[in-house]
Formats: sequence, C-alpha cells, structure tokens
Amino acid sequence: MPVRRLGMFLVICAPSGAGKSTLIKKLCAEFPAISFSVSATTRSPRPGERPGIDYHFLSREEFLAWREAGKLAEWAEVHGNFYGTPLTPVRQALADGRDILFDVDVQGAALLRQSLGQEGAYVYILPPSRAELYRRLSGRGTDSPEVVAKRLAAAQAELVQAPLFDYWVENAELDTAYDDLRAVYMAERRRPRCHPDFLRELLAQWEAAV
Amino acid sequence: MPVRRLGMFLVICAPSGAGKSTLIKKLCAEFPAISFSVSATTRSPRPGERPGIDYHFLSREEFLAWREAGKLAEWAEVHGNFYGTPLTPVRQALADGRDILFDVDVQGAALLRQSLGQEGAYVYILPPSRAELYRRLSGRGTDSPEVVAKRLAAAQAELVQAPLFDYWVENAELDTAYDDLRAVYMAERRRPRCHPDFLRELLAQWEAAV
Repeated sequence: MPVRRLGMFLVICAPSGAGKSTLIKKLCAEFPAISFSVSATTRSPRPGERPGIDYHFLSREEFLAWREAGKLAEWAEVHGNFYGTPLTPVRQALADGRDILFDVDVQGAALLRQSLGQEGAYVYILPPSRAELYRRLSGRGTDSPEVVAKRLAAAQAELVQAPLFDYWVENAELDTAYDDLRAVYMAERRRPRCHPDFLRELLAQWEAAV
Repeated sequence: MPVRRLGMFLVICAPSGAGKSTLIKKLCAEFPAISFSVSATTRSPRPGERPGIDYHFLSREEFLAWREAGKLAEWAEVHGNFYGTPLTPVRQALADGRDILFDVDVQGAALLRQSLGQEGAYVYILPPSRAELYRRLSGRGTDSPEVVAKRLAAAQAELVQAPLFDYWVENAELDTAYDDLRAVYMAERRRPRCHPDFLRELLAQWEAAV
C-alpha cells in the first residue's frame, strides 16, 4: 500500500534451547525492515559497544528516575544491573512505520503488554518435548551437566506462562517453525490498525468519480 | 504436534472483482485439509448436485424451523431463496481438527461472528484502487457496462464494512496477496486454543522425569 503504514511489534519468548535465536536471525535476514529496540542499562559499556546504538547507558539514579516516570516499557534486574526498554523510541518507530522485535523473558513480555496495550503479537516458541530440549541443551557442549539441569528446570517454570501468549510456534523442525513464525509476522502486518488511511483513501476514489 | 488439534475457521469476504475466488482456489490447492462448510438452501437441486455434499436441500418450512431453532450459523435470502450454514456440522468439524473456510458476504460474516464467537479469522480482500477494480470487472468481458457500474457501486457499500474484519489483504498483485492470505491461515493455526492438550502433555514430561 502506498499510503501511510504504522509499524507493528513482535514479542518473542522461549525457554533456553528452544531455538529462539536461530529463528530470530532468519526472520531479520528475510525482513531487514525489522529492527530491535535499543535497551537502556546500568551496566558499564563493554569494549566496542556504542552508546545509543547497542545500549543507552544510564546511571542507576537515571534508570530509576526513568522507571518512576513511566518512561520504560519493561524492565528487569539481572545480576545487580538494570535493563529496560525506553518507551518513546518504540512509539516513534511504530508511528514511522517501522516494525520492532522484542527478545525478552516472559516477565518482560507481561510488562510490555501492560505498557503497549493490545497492539503487538506475542509469540512463544515451544520445544517439541523435554527429551529434545535436553538433547539440544547438552548438545551445545559448552555447559556442565549442572547448568543443563538448571536450564531444564527453568524451562518448566517458563513454559507454565505460555498460555499468556497469542501464538505458539512449535520448533520440532527449524524450517517448519520458521514458516510459522514468518506467517505470524506477515499476518500481523495485515491488521487494519497498521493501515489507518488506506480505506479512507480508497473510498475517496468513489467520491472523486461521481 | 502429535496431540489433539482443534480446527480453525477462516471467513473471507471481498467486493466482486477483488480476486477472492482465485485466492481461495490457491489456498485450498496448497492446503487440502481445508474444507468448505456445506450450506443449506431452499432452492431446487440443479442437475448433478448431490444432497448433503453440494447442499442440504430443505423445504422453506424446514429452513425457517432451523433458523428459529438457532441451528444456522448464518443465513441470507437471495432472489427469493434461502441459504444458510448449519451450525452442528461446523462445530463437529472444528472439534475433529478440520479447518473450515467460509466464503460469505459481509452480512454473513457478521452473523458468523455472532454465532461462532471470537474464534475464527475474518479476512477482507481489498482491491488496490477503484480504477483497478473497474479494469478487472470490465475486463471479464461477460458483463454489460450497466452490470459493471452496478458491481462498482455495490463494492463501495461493501468496502465500508471492511473495518469489522481482523485482517486486510490487499490484492494488487496475486502472488503477494496469496502470500499474505496463506500467512493469516498459517498464523491462526498457531493459536493456543487450537492445541488444547499440547502444553499439559509437554509439562507432564517434567513430572514424569522427577
């Protein structure tokens, strides 16, 4: 449609080992128009990280002030550092017709739903079975059996939240799962709210023809 | 998912000339699991039409009794004959995991929403412009200029109802429009309500592993 399009956002959650990162990478490769929101954090920049591009680096006081003022769409504390999503750039991107992908945990997803309303699509990536999840987690070869067991237990706690999501994508086989995730993204771009002027401009062509 | 899946239904509307029939034909060719609901009608069977397969043929009295008893998901009167969708086979098909496509007008879509609740996906196929719709309607070469003008005027009245639908598929170019319609169908099959046992059975694998 040549007329104004509003952006949409996709919130993707999954337990560790479900294949979320691979699916997200494929989606962003096919649709370069999708961008990630830039998070704010109180942790120190790592070598090579650019302020405002990789993260908004804030002091602890600044972060808490932003949070109090309702300027964060979601936030979390991880290992003593705060992370969050500034609301204004998200709203601006959507108004400019850019689509945004949020890669968050289930708590972050719940906070996003509170801040951003009923507009986005919330997708949960499900493993086909516990056995397959275990196989993937231990197959990485990077984690000790204790860490794998911890991730497997965490997955159970995460999965309980899956009913709060709009779509379930089962990742038994990558190509099928990707086709489903791609379908969710494409379908959600066809929501009438993303095309606020189209119908009005189309109907105006009838008025003009009289 | 190997566990029980419930069916979903797709309601597709469009003004005459938007390309609905072609899109539906492509969708049913790619996904043979999609079936049409069998309508009830009071008109006489035409040669070759099989009762219960092409139509449920009812007397006027039977039809009105079904309507009164709330046995029809939607109904309409066209040229003095009644047409309608019996509710029970639809509910049975969905419970059996079969997906159903409804090819109805906007009034039928509104009645379906009333009868079947918030479960299905309601798609409106939009022409890219009035000029293109005119080109397609007159390009068929089968209709007189008067009939084309009538269809064009009817399209305007139909389009006003488009905001009541969940998705808008713009048919400027067939392959793009089909990719969008296909996405809506695939995405809607990933709704949690279509997989009522999956999460429970997945979580049970954790209980069994303890």
